[in-house]
Formats: sequence, structure tokens, C-alpha cells
Amino acid sequence: MAEYTSQPNRVRVIVSPANPLIKVLRGALAEGVTRQGLLAVEGPFLVEEALNAKEHTVVHSVLLAQSERGKFSGLLARLPKEAEVACVPDRIFRQLAETQSPQGIAALVELRQEKLESALGRRDTLLLVACGLQDPGNLGTMMRSAQAFGGSALITLEGTVSPFNPKAVRASAGAVFHLPVFERLKTEPLFRQLRKAGVRIIAADRRSPTSLTDADLRGSLAILVGQEAAGLSPDLLHEANLLLSIPIRESMNSMNAAVAASIFLFEAARQREFRYRVIG
Amino acid sequence: MAEYTSQPNRVRVIVSPANPLIKVLRGALAEGVTRQGLLAVEGPFLVEEALNAKEHTVVHSVLLAQSERGKFSGLLARLPKEAEVACVPDRIFRQLAETQSPQGIAALVELRQEKLESALGRRDTLLLVACGLQDPGNLGTMMRSAQAFGGSALITLEGTVSPFNPKAVRASAGAVFHLPVFERLKTEPLFRQLRKAGVRIIAADRRSPTSLTDADLRGSLAILVGQEAAGLSPDLLHEANLLLSIPIRESMNSMNAAVAASIFLFEAARQREFRYRVIG
Repeated sequence: MAEYTSQPNRVRVIVSPANPLIKVLRGALAEGVTRQGLLAVEGPFLVEEALNAKEHTVVHSVLLAQSERGKFSGLLARLPKEAEVACVPDRIFRQLAETQSPQGIAALVELRQEKLESALGRRDTLLLVACGLQDPGNLGTMMRSAQAFGGSALITLEGTVSPFNPKAVRASAGAVFHLPVFERLKTEPLFRQLRKAGVRIIAADRRSPTSLTDADLRGSLAILVGQEAAGLSPDLLHEANLLLSIPIRESMNSMNAAVAASIFLFEAARQREFRYRVIG
Repeated sequence: MAEYTSQPNRVRVIVSPANPLIKVLRGALAEGVTRQGLLAVEGPFLVEEALNAKEHTVVHSVLLAQSERGKFSGLLARLPKEAEVACVPDRIFRQLAETQSPQGIAALVELRQEKLESALGRRDTLLLVACGLQDPGNLGTMMRSAQAFGGSALITLEGTVSPFNPKAVRASAGAVFHLPVFERLKTEPLFRQLRKAGVRIIAADRRSPTSLTDADLRGSLAILVGQEAAGLSPDLLHEANLLLSIPIRESMNSMNAAVAASIFLFEAARQREFRYRVIG
């Protein structure tokens, strides 16, 4: 390991698939998160994004595939001193990996913790509330757009796919490391808190005669987005202060759910003149 | 087959996997299109969308799985009289199907033919030009948004994934039956034709300092969208009349390609006050 002596973190070599780190990572890469709430990610892009988001995340452990370890010295040099770095035979790495073409690096990352109250209480807060979505790729794309357009947090209701599902994390393209996420909230208490915090509740509803471009989307806002086919349930529509639609051609019944959410976020950002602030 | 005597189309029963229709469908469901240019689609949703788009499409053949045929009498009643309807044992249907959970119905559909000149010459034409995209799901989602926001056609340059790839067709959610599609065009002749037709060429370029919301997106327009990671090549950027970006938060490098294209189309539609016309 002479080539690593100048690196801040020692690389431990693991050869047993029964090693505790291997076991934790195997479970976490399939599920998304460990029991301790650490997010498992694969590939240099996501590990780099986690390091870029260092105000909000801490990289705890990095696992390398033996034959690829030489490629990642740049990334390893950026790790916090306390991070654990281990290397395994390629065969073991491939068994762990969930992606079809494993890229030889995986990590366990601690995400920022924030209280729901602070996300709700932020000035001109912009919240995206995913209500029952099942497609992790769509949910990840929504996180990406929420972060891109100045969103303050993603909230998912009970019954929605996990935002920490590996496909959602990949589709988020790093947004998951920046955007506060509150998952599996119960409808009633959430709406009570939104009202108490003075957050207007907007439902994306394709049957609404009012276009989102005719509404004022400035100020504190929560945007509810439902499943593509079913839309939002009558109960949720009832909770909203305002139902808004995206005006589309009659020949189309609906839009892709992630696109619809992104357009609501874009229109809100446009009305706010794209003045973004760092989430903090 | 007594239950079908009142239907307009006789249902032929096929038991041999070597039957010509089976062979054509097998190839087409994997590739998207037959050698004769018929589009192969699976599932009741897409077959119904093809029937809904009957100004632009003709359903030629429908294949049913034996155990499911009773479910589709409503759809079959809407078929053109000339359409061929056949039924196969479930086992053969499953072998043909490309989807993970085959829904017992597939069809061959003839798409509208249009000349590129008419799409370019339409008043206030709105063209989406996909330049090198590789993800069929993203391309299909772009078709869906193009149709939703009043797009006049989708154009793909050489080297772009096929818009008739089965995943693209599914993601288009029926838009492929409405929206004229011109695929694998060569860059130089296309740009010459666009200029000749007086179509302004807008490049989606994340490095541009000019926001799409600060540009006039009315009038005849072609919007160029590149690959997510690489963006548009310098050559393509050079061809454009105007480079525009979507203003996003600094912490994010990029957006999902289908979302970015959809936002350009939405902003164009918004500036055109969502006045859509039927493509015809």
C-alpha cells in the first residue's frame, strides 16, 4: 500500500464477505439506507457530489474494488480524516453492487438532519410534497428539480416510494445531498403544521380550470403532486388552498409526473425571479 | 368464437410461432418498427391511444393472448374494418412481449406520414430537435411534452436513440401517435432547411448567461437539446441563433434532459399564451 502512504486515510484491505462493513453496505446498497440512517451510494459521481455537499453531508465509509482503487486517489484525498476506507477483491465488490456496471466505488454518507419546523418556517419556503408516487426515478428527478429551482425541502407522504431508494438517489444526481428530505409523513399532522406555519397549499390537478401561470406562486408554498395516472385523492384536493393545472393540448391526458412537478417548481422560481439562496 | 360474431373483425386463431404475423410482431416489438415502417405497441393503453389518434394513425393488426381476449371487446369494436385480429396461446404471447408483465394485447400501427417541409413551414412552428440523446425514456418523455405544449414535430439528429424504441414509445404515453417525428436527420441539410424556412434556432445551453425567460420564444422556433452530461457540441452551438439557459441554483450542475426540454417547451407555450392548434 505504499502508494497510499501520502493519503490522509489508510486503506484497509478486506477479503471476507462476512466483514461487518461489507454486510452493512450490502444491505444498504439494496435498500438505500442503513439502520443507522446512513445513505449508501455507488459510483464516483455520487461520491463526489456527497463530498461537494460537505456543509450538509459527512462521508463515513468508502469501499473500493481492488482493480479500480488507483483511479480514485483524487476523491480519497478529499475525504474527512475520520472516514474509513476499505478495499475488497473485485468479485466481492460486484456482489455488493446494485448497478449493472459497477464503477468500483461505494460509500456510506450521513445526510443533514433538519427539523421539519425549520423547513416550514423558512422565509418564502418552497416545499414539494410527493403524494403516493411509486416510480423512484420520477421521485429522484423531482428532488433534482426541487434543488435546481430553489426548493426548500422534499416531503413524501406515507405510501410514497422512498427517496433513498437507490434508483431515486441516482436520478437525483446529487440533489439528495443538498435538499432536506422528510419522508413518510402522515397527511393530517403535516397539513396542520403547514397551516400553522402559514404555508399555502397548492395542488397540481389537471382538472383545475386555473392555470398555474395565472396564480401567484410567491411566498411560502407547498406544492402537492400525485401519481401520474390517478392524480391526487379527493381528500388531498380538499386540503389544498388552490388547485392549479398546467395548460396542455387536449389530445394529451397528462404529463410525466416528474415533468409536471418540475414545471410547477420552474414557474414558482420564475415568479420569484430566480433569486435562490443557499439552504442553510 | 361465437362471442365475436357481433364484432366487426373476425378473430383468427394462430397456434404456430412460425406464423408470419407472429414473426413480424416479434421483430417489431423488440425493435419498435417493422421493415414496412409499422410501429409495434403493447398493452391496452397504447392500443387505445392509437385508436384515439385515428386522424393520424391506422391500426393494421392486433394480437391477443388467448386468456385475455375477453377483456378487449371494447377496443376491438373500435378497430377499422380492414384490421387483422389474431389470437395466440398465452405462452406464445409471453414469448413475443417485451414488457415485464405483458397485458395480453399488441398491435401494429401505421403512423402519419408528413413532409419535413410542411412541419417547418407551419405558422409559428415549434420544433424540438434531439441531438445525440441516448436514453429512450427521456426521448419518449420529450415527445410527450412536445405534444402537450403544442409542439409541431420532433426531429432527431443522426446518432440519437430511436423515437420508435419500445421504451421511448411507452414513455411518450401516446404522443408518438400524434406528433410528427423525423428521425436520423443529418445536421447540415437540416440547418439549411430550417434557415430557408425562417425558423429561428435556439440552443439549450446551460453555460449561456441569457435566461430562456428573457428571450422571445414566439414565432417559428427549433429548440436544440443535447445529452445530459455533454450538452450540445460546439458545432451545434455555432449553428444556433441564440443560446439560452434555464437559471438554476449553483449547487446543481444540470437538470434531467427531458425536464430541461419540457421547460423550454412550457416557456414557449406560456409566451404563446397556451393557444394550441390541432396538428393537421
